[in-house]
Amino acid sequence: MSAPFAHHFEIRLHDTDVAGRLFFAHLFRHAHDAYEAFMRAIGAPLDALIRQGELILPLTHAEADYRRAMCHGDRIGVEVQVLELRQRSFSIGYRFLSEAGEVAATALTVHVLIAQSRSTTPELPADLHAALANHLATN
Amino acid sequence: MSAPFAHHFEIRLHDTDVAGRLFFAHLFRHAHDAYEAFMRAIGAPLDALIRQGELILPLTHAEADYRRAMCHGDRIGVEVQVLELRQRSFSIGYRFLSEAGEVAATALTVHVLIAQSRSTTPELPADLHAALANHLATN
Amino acid sequence: MSAPFAHHFEIRLHDTDVAGRLFFAHLFRHAHDAYEAFMRAIGAPLDALIRQGELILPLTHAEADYRRAMCHGDRIGVEVQVLELRQRSFSIGYRFLSEAGEVAATALTVHVLIAQSRSTTPELPADLHAALANHLATN
Amino acid sequence: MSAPFAHHFEIRLHDTDVAGRLFFAHLFRHAHDAYEAFMRAIGAPLDALIRQGELILPLTHAEADYRRAMCHGDRIGVEVQVLELRQRSFSIGYRFLSEAGEVAATALTVHVLIAQSRSTTPELPADLHAALANHLATN
Repeated sequence: MSAPFAHHFEIRLHDTDVAGRLFFAHLFRHAHDAYEAFMRAIGAPLDALIRQGELILPLTHAEADYRRAMCHGDRIGVEVQVLELRQRSFSIGYRFLSEAGEVAATALTVHVLIAQSRSTTPELPADLHAALANHLATN
Repeated sequence: MSAPFAHHFEIRLHDTDVAGRLFFAHLFRHAHDAYEAFMRAIGAPLDALIRQGELILPLTHAEADYRRAMCHGDRIGVEVQVLELRQRSFSIGYRFLSEAGEVAATALTVHVLIAQSRSTTPELPADLHAALANHLATN
Repeated sequence: MSAPFAHHFEIRLHDTDVAGRLFFAHLFRHAHDAYEAFMRAIGAPLDALIRQGELILPLTHAEADYRRAMCHGDRIGVEVQVLELRQRSFSIGYRFLSEAGEVAATALTVHVLIAQSRSTTPELPADLHAALANHLATN
Repeated sequence: MSAPFAHHFEIRLHDTDVAGRLFFAHLFRHAHDAYEAFMRAIGAPLDALIRQGELILPLTHAEADYRRAMCHGDRIGVEVQVLELRQRSFSIGYRFLSEAGEVAATALTVHVLIAQSRSTTPELPADLHAALANHLATN
């Protein structure tokens, strides 16, 4: 069991709307950036997966809860954990933290494996499964 | 009781990722476009609400389920309905339909009123409440 | 010689930044939306071109001049014209007009044909060339 | 005279279109991220400037030249320099470099000071002018 993977970013001008807060849809873009960084860190970079064309992992669900406004210039940390892990799907949890350590938002994405060809079994490869298992939340 | 409000858009090149499908986070941008068009249609355009500065309606929750890929050039219809309506909050439901009428995705956003000044009561204005009530889903 | 092709859109909440104005980079997204609508109108929809895989038309240059702020809720018209047309490249000009008809911004994109295979000649197909020629600006 | 300020980012899934390349408009988003990082580094963070409300520096011009495709997973460095510096305007130049050091794109943005109130002189503050002067390109 390891500490959550951490990704950092800063709220940029284009992230905010006229009300001065992070536009809600952009949270999902940042969540996916954290997911990409996480997948690279565990040895399964998305760009390689997509180029190899053996694994397609489309999202089937996404959700977020917004608790505190994130404003232009704020530095945000994202903790990434695997919340659920099955044979051909997994869900990723995200906690967006302010510099003071307060939870500004949480998010969840569900990814389901689709086999690209009939010949491949629709099951997560053993090494990817093991890498994700290392980051399962323990709650 | 009225038919759902309908908004239409086309999947553009920048909506899709290298896998050729609508990038999941962009669904929320399109949902919000549909919400803006809906609010304008019921007489409560967001830009006026924000300029008047009396009503702030930040999202506290958003979620989406993805069922079918939406690809570059696809023309999508979005049905918008009010799913829940309370004194100071409401939730909006979205159904994304292909031209063939198949549900490609659904989404939900929850909006909660925040009073900008202490003097205003944190309650949805009667006319906005009534306008939203006209679009409450019946099921 | 025909009147410029016209595309319309509305400035949405997510288009604006905390200063209340269209974030400059989003102008290019709207320009490309206008370009996609234009290409469809002249019989060369981008999605079909990309799926057929015979024509790749990457941008080699883009530029914009910003004259007046475009704000949340503004309805903008975009006039699209072909400014230059060569054997394997063309440039598209955009004029962003307010409802009052004032020029809020102008933009320009340059597209150059790349042949995907050695067997195809790197030259714009005759029908596309003719369709673009119909929309050449005259001044 | 100092070396160019450097900003780094990675091409994410949402940056690319179905053709597998950075969508051209997103280059400007990344250029602005580099500009924000640069302004913070020279002691003039944009968020503070906007909050203080004394300085508004809207873009009046932006342009980019695209030389090499930037693809999902590519790590890009951006060199930022001040290309021109006047009393109430300046232009920023960007060079986007691949990991191999090849120029993938260049960009330019022009910023012009607008005084928010009649009482303030429309002139760049002396300290900002000096900070920008330190990063003037020498060519």
